[in-house]
Amino acid sequence: MPAGVPLVTLLTDFGTADYYVAALKGVLLSRAPGSTLVDVTHDVPPGDVETAAFLLDAAARWFPEGTVHLVVVDPGVGGDRRILAARRGGHRFVAPDNGALGAVLGDAEAHAVRAEGLFVPGPGATFHGRDRLAPVAAHLAAGGVLEELGPAIDDPVRLDLPPPRRAAGLARGRVAHVDRFGNLVTDVPTRWVGDRDAVVARLGGREVTRRAGHYAEMPAGEPAWLPGSLGTVELALRGESLSRRWGLGRGEPVELAFR
Amino acid sequence: MPAGVPLVTLLTDFGTADYYVAALKGVLLSRAPGSTLVDVTHDVPPGDVETAAFLLDAAARWFPEGTVHLVVVDPGVGGDRRILAARRGGHRFVAPDNGALGAVLGDAEAHAVRAEGLFVPGPGATFHGRDRLAPVAAHLAAGGVLEELGPAIDDPVRLDLPPPRRAAGLARGRVAHVDRFGNLVTDVPTRWVGDRDAVVARLGGREVTRRAGHYAEMPAGEPAWLPGSLGTVELALRGESLSRRWGLGRGEPVELAFR
Amino acid sequence: MPAGVPLVTLLTDFGTADYYVAALKGVLLSRAPGSTLVDVTHDVPPGDVETAAFLLDAAARWFPEGTVHLVVVDPGVGGDRRILAARRGGHRFVAPDNGALGAVLGDAEAHAVRAEGLFVPGPGATFHGRDRLAPVAAHLAAGGVLEELGPAIDDPVRLDLPPPRRAAGLARGRVAHVDRFGNLVTDVPTRWVGDRDAVVARLGGREVTRRAGHYAEMPAGEPAWLPGSLGTVELALRGESLSRRWGLGRGEPVELAFR
Repeated sequence: MPAGVPLVTLLTDFGTADYYVAALKGVLLSRAPGSTLVDVTHDVPPGDVETAAFLLDAAARWFPEGTVHLVVVDPGVGGDRRILAARRGGHRFVAPDNGALGAVLGDAEAHAVRAEGLFVPGPGATFHGRDRLAPVAAHLAAGGVLEELGPAIDDPVRLDLPPPRRAAGLARGRVAHVDRFGNLVTDVPTRWVGDRDAVVARLGGREVTRRAGHYAEMPAGEPAWLPGSLGTVELALRGESLSRRWGLGRGEPVELAFR
Repeated sequence: MPAGVPLVTLLTDFGTADYYVAALKGVLLSRAPGSTLVDVTHDVPPGDVETAAFLLDAAARWFPEGTVHLVVVDPGVGGDRRILAARRGGHRFVAPDNGALGAVLGDAEAHAVRAEGLFVPGPGATFHGRDRLAPVAAHLAAGGVLEELGPAIDDPVRLDLPPPRRAAGLARGRVAHVDRFGNLVTDVPTRWVGDRDAVVARLGGREVTRRAGHYAEMPAGEPAWLPGSLGTVELALRGESLSRRWGLGRGEPVELAFR
Repeated sequence: MPAGVPLVTLLTDFGTADYYVAALKGVLLSRAPGSTLVDVTHDVPPGDVETAAFLLDAAARWFPEGTVHLVVVDPGVGGDRRILAARRGGHRFVAPDNGALGAVLGDAEAHAVRAEGLFVPGPGATFHGRDRLAPVAAHLAAGGVLEELGPAIDDPVRLDLPPPRRAAGLARGRVAHVDRFGNLVTDVPTRWVGDRDAVVARLGGREVTRRAGHYAEMPAGEPAWLPGSLGTVELALRGESLSRRWGLGRGEPVELAFR
């Protein structure tokens, strides 16, 4: 971990109208005073582990090494699901063992947290984010190491998402995310398409043939595909939600034909 | 106050789409440079002092001693309501004198703020959060003491909420809060129920008999009661809003019968 | 720039449910470690440059000198619109050259950013907030100077908003903003009205004659005008949204007659 101010990101499904996020932050700042806390989002739909995993992967890569990422999307809270602490590429992650770490788990070193001594003795068994995960994240932010938290494991829960596939002149994937603007972010790497302009994207019985470099270049009213900001192909409609227009959301199969 | 970075929490009904919260923060960071600012929430319904009080009490207890808590839910702004600065258990609080400090007021030392010299000469009389309360909170965060702010008072405005009551085999209280997930958080202390499983919760003409330890343990579709994360009894429905399902909200009377 | 912790405000139309804001913050904290980041808002309606400009002006004035203000409301992203870095009154601003700096641009020193060496090599051309504007803001926060970023220009894009006008006994302006409470914030300076009580405000075929000093002073159900917290005349309805009640929004012409 680099010297300097500890940095902790937070990603939850708690919303921002309740006291839950503040409780996490109170514990973090009590246990790791002076930390800088950054909200990724708290608007993950309740219990939606796949959205959490997508947003974590999309956000974490822009933070400096040494950052601790705390994810609390935890529909199994209080049950026997494990708590994970993981390390990958200079970043540390703390989350329930339910797939929420998604792609960042990859080949990460993962430990099952058994550090009862760190836990906050909060009432009830429904808020492990505050009572268990935040203290673990604070421990790491304050200079603690993964090995102290529990045994290394090789079977963390992984999301079972179908990976995108390619064949001659064809790529198949899915809508991985609908963003705030209603753009359909696919999981098909832009590099598979390369510089080709002659690409037909098919999804939900629709076809998109126009390629744009950016939104301002798109003609009004006509959907286009473009190289998205996460390195994957995106489908968009200028100044409007393509998701709403076409009624398509996450998981929708997408096929790209390179003519 | 412990040494280190001053910590200020903010709790308002300003929403997050406007410039109001940023103005508070600008004043705080101008007057107490280097402070760490933490949002509790800004989504208190406009003027809803009771919600502010609930969330403040629920959040503040997780912050370290020395924290200054700023509450701006101020329907009487500009009128003759006083501004309070209070101290309790190592925490300081700044709020309009309208009940927004709720339970944290308790036996706090309370002062009526008359520190005109600190106020920001902002235009109008509609934004005392920015012009008066934030400067007072900044003063405390920067090392100032309560006694400088105005005279101690013994009659701060208190919320007139009926406390929960217990009798032989029975507890009566109310729904104190509906959380982001639609769970009904009551004001009945879990310790009154103790380890009993044979409890019937009655509210809104409904009965709940199943006890759960946590959400994942609840059978789908069947409401249960459980020991909540604030030390009070909570009623919930797994993966769904019980509040919406039953059409019940804050203030609903609750009776717990210990069979 | 004063010594101390660098301070950066963020104002975008990214919403808070996505990873976009976190990506900006990751870049800022990677390039200007230890910075304090303050959200103005991320709830600007998508592409609404005028709202961004209003909120920036309303918020920035409360921050200390040395603050860097980053605005990413960028419907033209990826096209040939320039990126601006500007300095005025001890504050620095970074934004697309599309009018988003609004009134704070004033007589600011403005530079067209050509500092390719600073840019993040993120994929795609749709997220200059992350790849270009945030690195430029971080550069300034970390002690860099405007002159290094690109040539001074004298033709930044300005919003073409009609200024308020006054004549004998009359002022004409418009609703510049509808706030979170549904209050109609006009652009007519309160000082034009002075201490007069006998003022008739006309808008949308309605008349408001009652003057109030603050909200608590307004009779229920009757709209009033009052000196607003930004130094302009405001129209409001106690405890209710006047905007919704009357169906009036931004841009609505307002006339104030001083009887």
